[in-house]
Amino acid sequence: MRIIDIIEKKRDGKELTREELETLILGYVRDQVPDYQIAAFLMAVVFRGMTDRETATLTDIMMHSGDTVDLSALPGVKVDKHSTGGVGDTTTLIVAPLVAACGGTVAKMSGRGLGHTGGTLDKLESIPGVNIEQPLDRFMDIVRRIGLAVIGQSGNLVPADKKLYALRDVTATIGSTPLIASSIMSKKLAAGADAIVLDVKVGSGAFMHTVEDAKELASLMVRIGDHLGRRCEAIITDMNQPLGLAVGNALEVQEAVDVLAGRVGEEEPLVQVSLLLGAHMLMLSDLAATEAEGKDMLLHALRTGAGLEKLRQMIEAMGGDPAYIDPERIRELCRVKKLVEVYPERDGYLAGLVAEKIGIASQLLGAGRAKKGDAIDPAVGLVMHRRVGDRLSVREPFCTLYVNDDRHLDEAVDLLHQSMTISAEQPASAPLVYAIVKE
Amino acid sequence: MRIIDIIEKKRDGKELTREELETLILGYVRDQVPDYQIAAFLMAVVFRGMTDRETATLTDIMMHSGDTVDLSALPGVKVDKHSTGGVGDTTTLIVAPLVAACGGTVAKMSGRGLGHTGGTLDKLESIPGVNIEQPLDRFMDIVRRIGLAVIGQSGNLVPADKKLYALRDVTATIGSTPLIASSIMSKKLAAGADAIVLDVKVGSGAFMHTVEDAKELASLMVRIGDHLGRRCEAIITDMNQPLGLAVGNALEVQEAVDVLAGRVGEEEPLVQVSLLLGAHMLMLSDLAATEAEGKDMLLHALRTGAGLEKLRQMIEAMGGDPAYIDPERIRELCRVKKLVEVYPERDGYLAGLVAEKIGIASQLLGAGRAKKGDAIDPAVGLVMHRRVGDRLSVREPFCTLYVNDDRHLDEAVDLLHQSMTISAEQPASAPLVYAIVKE
Repeated sequence: MRIIDIIEKKRDGKELTREELETLILGYVRDQVPDYQIAAFLMAVVFRGMTDRETATLTDIMMHSGDTVDLSALPGVKVDKHSTGGVGDTTTLIVAPLVAACGGTVAKMSGRGLGHTGGTLDKLESIPGVNIEQPLDRFMDIVRRIGLAVIGQSGNLVPADKKLYALRDVTATIGSTPLIASSIMSKKLAAGADAIVLDVKVGSGAFMHTVEDAKELASLMVRIGDHLGRRCEAIITDMNQPLGLAVGNALEVQEAVDVLAGRVGEEEPLVQVSLLLGAHMLMLSDLAATEAEGKDMLLHALRTGAGLEKLRQMIEAMGGDPAYIDPERIRELCRVKKLVEVYPERDGYLAGLVAEKIGIASQLLGAGRAKKGDAIDPAVGLVMHRRVGDRLSVREPFCTLYVNDDRHLDEAVDLLHQSMTISAEQPASAPLVYAIVKE
Repeated sequence: MRIIDIIEKKRDGKELTREELETLILGYVRDQVPDYQIAAFLMAVVFRGMTDRETATLTDIMMHSGDTVDLSALPGVKVDKHSTGGVGDTTTLIVAPLVAACGGTVAKMSGRGLGHTGGTLDKLESIPGVNIEQPLDRFMDIVRRIGLAVIGQSGNLVPADKKLYALRDVTATIGSTPLIASSIMSKKLAAGADAIVLDVKVGSGAFMHTVEDAKELASLMVRIGDHLGRRCEAIITDMNQPLGLAVGNALEVQEAVDVLAGRVGEEEPLVQVSLLLGAHMLMLSDLAATEAEGKDMLLHALRTGAGLEKLRQMIEAMGGDPAYIDPERIRELCRVKKLVEVYPERDGYLAGLVAEKIGIASQLLGAGRAKKGDAIDPAVGLVMHRRVGDRLSVREPFCTLYVNDDRHLDEAVDLLHQSMTISAEQPASAPLVYAIVKE
């Protein structure tokens, strides 16, 4: 089978067989197929797309290109959640402990932040002592004992995605729905969960800029999961502004602790999305019959402090100091050299935010990475004081920056100003959740 | 300027600027842009195409990526011809001497055969002593003295095309009209001719399988030539069957010598296409006012033997033994260990041929290369005895194979049988020339 014939077949819009996809993808992983042929193939996929069967087969091949995790030794339904990446989105640190407190089993492998979006691993590492690199047997042991663990990808999981993603990143082939779906789902499926709730973000801070595109991606991922024998659902949520108010690492952990300690209103978007995700995780785990029942269970875990206790247990099990999982003590981790208050340029209503710019502002302060391997400062970042629809006054700061290194401070402040649209009239409120996608 | 932004712009169907195309193409030639980014770009061009302006700019950048030939020291209009590649097409060896005999100046750089199509350089080298690698000053000297020379590309001509073509060949991005046009035209323009007549082949043995596609390519090349200040015309001719009867190297030279010696009927397709190409070369050289006048001049040169004498002079000037440019002596160069006659499987009419299969059959006998650098046997090949429309009889061979090495003989015979369609009724005759394309 010649590689060029496979590229040509895709170029001409035909469906590839499993054998053809294996020849391409496994050949690439084994360095037998050169990157320029894969680059041409990927661009052909951008234009021609893939059928559902092709996308599921590609996902399956990618998933099995390296090690896979076997969670079957753990009791019950192992449930995972995945977000397509947002700003100020710390739902994992809220929902995983709450679901575990309700009897769910959350064995989750997570990622680091890249570009303007944050990553759960970086947030966890802002707590002194936490080691996100746990051996697999130790990971299983923690989950068996307390019902949850969130660690970094261990071993050689989905090497095909690592190579393909790096190539897509430099060949303008990131924005293809089947390629995005197979990339996400191969990693989720290799990590071994029986059930997955996907949080597909839509808006200025997300990959998907329209609800239609987000629905298409969500639906495709749910179908892939179904095709490969997992229970999947997707929730499409707004990412036109940061989900929570905090953007940074320790700052987001602090916000999660505040939520679990009952210090944040239950009507806040971060809490609402967490409850919705958690309710569907409980439903897929056969622990709740309806969304309403799931939410009630989670709220009970929140109000009794059972969720906060689960987070504390997990941090301790992962080597961290559990004393910090406390609304007062956690603030010690957010101490910086200076706080900078940012004021709006004029009075009015906050009519819009560009979440991506806010994410980049936080990154410029040292909370994120420009490229893989860059060091990050766990304490820095920013806290928003206004959400879209709120009234603004030139006398009241709309954002506080947490700064240790002010080399890029001016640039960060400029970005925050650029991220705002101020209008004279109060804007109509935008939805927080656009759709729930099931098979 | 980031390479990924340029790829993205083309992916999204926008027109690239000269600066953007230079960044890509010259960066690639200088090994500053990796081949996987160019591969993705080329596939995006396959889907999005290029505007006329983009294609002309790309051609100009490619043409100036290395040395260019300056023919201005030669008198009059320097005229070239180029064929997009066919089987049994030895028009160059007929038309170049005839045009020179009519007072034209033909300073031509030619190529080698690759795949199923033959190359003029390989044919010339079948004559003992011929050296196709002439230094530029010697090349100019020959042209000044006798009015023609056909040599190999000397120096570092169009390195961008060498790299791009090699990459297109392995990434399924050959079949894009602007990429084909810029590849051909950059080489032709760099070789310095003032006027170019293009022979765009259409049919089973050609790149272009439909007359529409061939017209589009021809028209684009003529517009590029015009845009870059050269006189160009294109003729669209049939390549559903070999143009001449001989397919091989010395065998095709023999056929050219037979034509120039008046041994081939003037109504034969090879002669007809040669006269048409030559007439347009004379018109672009301001030596003939009309096609009819041009053909008359060429026929006069043919009938008086002036064309044969020009070919003899050229072979001598290039170090070859001119004694072989004689219808009897040339046959010595086609002596092989055995001749194999191939008979039709049943009686009927020859309703169709697949020129590509005939070209591959000749290649398998050793007349062509499977890959660059393969050795070829100048004496081997085949001679067809029937053309489409002719009557076939199981008692009369339709083809004679010239064989020195019979390792692939069975395969070649099979291909010849596969190339034939035999019908009970005489098929309608197909045109030889489909169109003439001028600015």
